[in-house]
Amino acid sequence: MAGIWGTGRDGASSIVMSGGYEDDIDEGDVIVYTGHGGNDPNTRRQVANQDLTQGNLALAKSCDDGLPLRVTRGFRLDSPYAPENGYRYDGLYTVERYWSQVGRSGFKIWRYRLALEPGEPAPPRRDGAAAAAAGTLGPASRAETTVQRIVRNSAVAEQVKDMYDHCCQICGCRIQTRAGAYSEGSHIRPLGRPHDGDDVVGNVLCLCPNHHVQLDLGGLTIDPSSLVITGNGIPSGRTLTVLPGHVIDRAQLAYHASLFQ
Amino acid sequence: MAGIWGTGRDGASSIVMSGGYEDDIDEGDVIVYTGHGGNDPNTRRQVANQDLTQGNLALAKSCDDGLPLRVTRGFRLDSPYAPENGYRYDGLYTVERYWSQVGRSGFKIWRYRLALEPGEPAPPRRDGAAAAAAGTLGPASRAETTVQRIVRNSAVAEQVKDMYDHCCQICGCRIQTRAGAYSEGSHIRPLGRPHDGDDVVGNVLCLCPNHHVQLDLGGLTIDPSSLVITGNGIPSGRTLTVLPGHVIDRAQLAYHASLFQ
Repeated sequence: MAGIWGTGRDGASSIVMSGGYEDDIDEGDVIVYTGHGGNDPNTRRQVANQDLTQGNLALAKSCDDGLPLRVTRGFRLDSPYAPENGYRYDGLYTVERYWSQVGRSGFKIWRYRLALEPGEPAPPRRDGAAAAAAGTLGPASRAETTVQRIVRNSAVAEQVKDMYDHCCQICGCRIQTRAGAYSEGSHIRPLGRPHDGDDVVGNVLCLCPNHHVQLDLGGLTIDPSSLVITGNGIPSGRTLTVLPGHVIDRAQLAYHASLFQ
Repeated sequence: MAGIWGTGRDGASSIVMSGGYEDDIDEGDVIVYTGHGGNDPNTRRQVANQDLTQGNLALAKSCDDGLPLRVTRGFRLDSPYAPENGYRYDGLYTVERYWSQVGRSGFKIWRYRLALEPGEPAPPRRDGAAAAAAGTLGPASRAETTVQRIVRNSAVAEQVKDMYDHCCQICGCRIQTRAGAYSEGSHIRPLGRPHDGDDVVGNVLCLCPNHHVQLDLGGLTIDPSSLVITGNGIPSGRTLTVLPGHVIDRAQLAYHASLFQ
């Protein structure tokens, strides 16, 4: 029955939208998806509260970690984007946000705002009409906001974050969200030209957001030999925590230190 | 002479690319721009180190705060994207990253990776050739990375951050980068459908990245009456710091608290 594949530890890998939930909203490139549990399979109405467990927790974890998931729409879905028959794979979406609220039924539901990844083709409308240029759920407020910071994730970053169980290698703190622990995989030598840092374990640290910002924007440096951290607000003599098995590429620490001299 | 307009306090509003710097790279939608200072106006060679002051500091501040800037290319620019004659306004770019390094000259320069904002038309090539589908500087590593988190900024958020001089309203910390202090304007009731929070001072807090993540992802709530903060890792009884003149909309705190029950 459940349309969500995944676990609270690793996030969700895919969902199937098959018309199960009265609170779902589908605008093609943006979806407000309802979690599972508590609905009557015959009437599709909510008859009990939903919990943030199992698939629901998996989707929340996907949001925290920015993990994309595969979306499939089924012909039973009550949406202009449902296929005429069968099931259609509609590409990768990311979970932009999650929250709980009382649904139409009067019971608590978990909801997820999903957005089609850039570069993925928009799903076709059943009635053949062109997708609205700007759906009402579309990228709201984009005109008035700017992007201050984009935090990226990768399979290698996930590996390092798991290794440290999300504890920051600089301060030891472990940020809690509603879905568990949160950390950011931080590349010592930046990815992409002209730096061309590698996405490998030796070039990635597990940091809290505060120390990730400082690493990226020149607010701290880490001595390649002693691993002593120098930065405003960081106690004197503090060294980077490194677990056995995490071999940090010291040359990348030297490269990083050179970036903000 | 200087091609950068702006201040270290407010960021840069615009740059003109006019062929002044030997280390500039121009691929149209992505630019690696060299800061100003230390070059000989006749030979265009660096003859001294550059400092992170004035326009250079302004560009770094733009990076920290995600402020877009206007880019104009001049006919003297040594680039396939330079106009045949005169000056051409080429739209809004954001500063993705900044760093210092030793340039070709042997002197220290400050460099800025600029990316054309989504939705802006790509600049035309002088030779009429189509822009390369993927320039060598292009969105590197995007295929292997995913977006974990996007932090947005707005004029209202800037106003609140200035009000608190970047001190977090939850913990009081003030994150330092190479360009000064860093904070994030955090909307209590989220922007965009279906929440439709307003981008107004009463709905925005000045937070450090750690507490912004916790606010957005349900790791903390703030009592609408007492302003007591509840969340893992937050000392018992801590209340939100609110300066006179910052009238927080308590109804939005109640809305936020309802999102992660």
